Amino acid sequence: MTRVHNFSAGPAALPEVVLAQAQAEMLDWEGAGMSVMEMSHRGREFGQIISEAEADLRTLLAVPGNYRILFLQGGATLQFSAIPLNLMGRGGAPDYVVTGEWSSKALKEAGRFGSVNVAASTPAGAHDHVPPWGEWRLDPAAAYVHYCSNETVHGVEFHWVPETGGVPLVADMSSHLLSGPLDVSRFGLIYAGAQKNIGPAGLVIVIVRDDLLGGASPQCPGLLDYKLNADAGSMPNTPATYSIYIAGLVFKWLLAGGGLTAIDRANDEKARLLYDFIDSSTLYTNPVAIPDRSRMNVPFMLRRPGLDDGFLAGAEARGLVQLRGHRSLGGMRASLYNAMPIEGVRALVEYMREFQTQHG
Amino acid sequence: MTRVHNFSAGPAALPEVVLAQAQAEMLDWEGAGMSVMEMSHRGREFGQIISEAEADLRTLLAVPGNYRILFLQGGATLQFSAIPLNLMGRGGAPDYVVTGEWSSKALKEAGRFGSVNVAASTPAGAHDHVPPWGEWRLDPAAAYVHYCSNETVHGVEFHWVPETGGVPLVADMSSHLLSGPLDVSRFGLIYAGAQKNIGPAGLVIVIVRDDLLGGASPQCPGLLDYKLNADAGSMPNTPATYSIYIAGLVFKWLLAGGGLTAIDRANDEKARLLYDFIDSSTLYTNPVAIPDRSRMNVPFMLRRPGLDDGFLAGAEARGLVQLRGHRSLGGMRASLYNAMPIEGVRALVEYMREFQTQHG
Repeated sequence: MTRVHNFSAGPAALPEVVLAQAQAEMLDWEGAGMSVMEMSHRGREFGQIISEAEADLRTLLAVPGNYRILFLQGGATLQFSAIPLNLMGRGGAPDYVVTGEWSSKALKEAGRFGSVNVAASTPAGAHDHVPPWGEWRLDPAAAYVHYCSNETVHGVEFHWVPETGGVPLVADMSSHLLSGPLDVSRFGLIYAGAQKNIGPAGLVIVIVRDDLLGGASPQCPGLLDYKLNADAGSMPNTPATYSIYIAGLVFKWLLAGGGLTAIDRANDEKARLLYDFIDSSTLYTNPVAIPDRSRMNVPFMLRRPGLDDGFLAGAEARGLVQLRGHRSLGGMRASLYNAMPIEGVRALVEYMREFQTQHG
Repeated sequence: MTRVHNFSAGPAALPEVVLAQAQAEMLDWEGAGMSVMEMSHRGREFGQIISEAEADLRTLLAVPGNYRILFLQGGATLQFSAIPLNLMGRGGAPDYVVTGEWSSKALKEAGRFGSVNVAASTPAGAHDHVPPWGEWRLDPAAAYVHYCSNETVHGVEFHWVPETGGVPLVADMSSHLLSGPLDVSRFGLIYAGAQKNIGPAGLVIVIVRDDLLGGASPQCPGLLDYKLNADAGSMPNTPATYSIYIAGLVFKWLLAGGGLTAIDRANDEKARLLYDFIDSSTLYTNPVAIPDRSRMNVPFMLRRPGLDDGFLAGAEARGLVQLRGHRSLGGMRASLYNAMPIEGVRALVEYMREFQTQHG
């Protein structure tokens, strides 16, 4: 078995020790004589798994006591519907900030359920920076403010938290939650599809402040009602049990490695290595404004046309895989989530340097 | 490692060979150098996995060409919302048939989105039979007819298919899909949560006739729109990739074992063994009318009070686990899904016989 360095934007690389533990426990979890996949979600074994997962996530993010953690299904995309269905009734039309593919989709879906304002945005062809705070036009009576704090496709990341006063701030953190410390108390609701930094696809984590529960529209499908999920401990029906188990192993891996402060340093180092090389190179460019560059998703283009396929083939031959850029942008993209070791980034930079020497 | 006999109603036992293959491939799927959990859902490897899963399911059930197969999230429960949101606009108030816990929940959720008729039902305290066909009051102008063809909690199974003429028949088959051959062409839509006979929780399979696509209400969350999912090959967003992979392995296991005709015979034999023993015993009873008994879920009660905990403890000591009945019914329940080998049922009957001798 040879493991590759996997730069996929998601589903993405998982820590090898997590996969090894899941492998060892596949037919028999802790002497239960069965796989986690085979356990009743109402039984004591799975009860232990989900309780530990929640407690560990609470520890990692120092989640305040007045926030609930929900383990749901349908990915961040289903939250694009659930958020307006739960929160729109709380005030005036919500404010959306559009900075890339995902915040655009969230805006469009919210419009299905009522009026929506665009409080700030970058143009569709140029999602290469965060709109400066001075340009934001926020409505103090809005039901909530929604933004995507890391745009996976465009590689644009907020390195600051908007201050929305009394209006609940809602953040899609799918592709950078757990990449570093976070002050949860600044937010009304945080959500993240698991398949980037957390675990397998099919799980989405919602962290929601108590006072935002209970306002779902009568037309909200029962399973999308946050209060119903919170009251039932994420189990009004059968949750994605195996995905929750893997996410729990990832949380334990993070805690064992020193928590979010340690992973924050590692992510800084990885991103600096790649961006510094790109900026000093003659062949590669990254289109994003330097202060708004994502540590997690690094799109890069080759200055000479026609080399992309050759670059990707050479990378794959060295075990550097899933580097092709998103279809809407072209070029390349390297995702450097928590599970990507520094060795992977070093191997990528080394290959990029050699390729530049040959083709630059 | 000692594997137990797992009688859970769901999540439930999976074939040991499937788990063993998943274990072997956990860190490296077919030389890709990564786990299936780590693969981009847009990559060629996962493309192969989902295509084969769909093709194998199509073969198993002989799904006609004018039906689409969707691999979705949120379990059968989210379909309780999706079905009215997609189909209600097609005609008059839909007809619901209520025969237990799950069809009751489906009825309640549908009522959120419009008027609903109860075409036939059994009383809440006595879900112990299928309402005779002569008692059904179907509206020929109804948008659809909904029923649950196997009630997991109450152990009531339809061994016949209602004839609804031109009105689309919609069936929740969560707990018995793939337990035997099925004439898909009798149905407008079939759905099934995976965590009983198919794979891990977090996946729901929908088989829907072409002409029922495209009628979603404007208030239907995008991700619940069947047409959008069908057009995107179940991937408008990231699907539950690992669950689809495991389901695909289960489909291959069924095909290798002789398909649904072979598993049908095995399920007959297992159910007969247990029901024959219960009916001939002095200590055990099953409340369901004989023609309507489920082959998959067998609730049984002890005639003498106060013995349940002792029965369950003794069973667990022999590796016969997850036999406690649903909280709404009490007593015991043995689920005999496809993955339960006849040896498991033999071991259960042997234990029940001994327990009866000691306590009868």
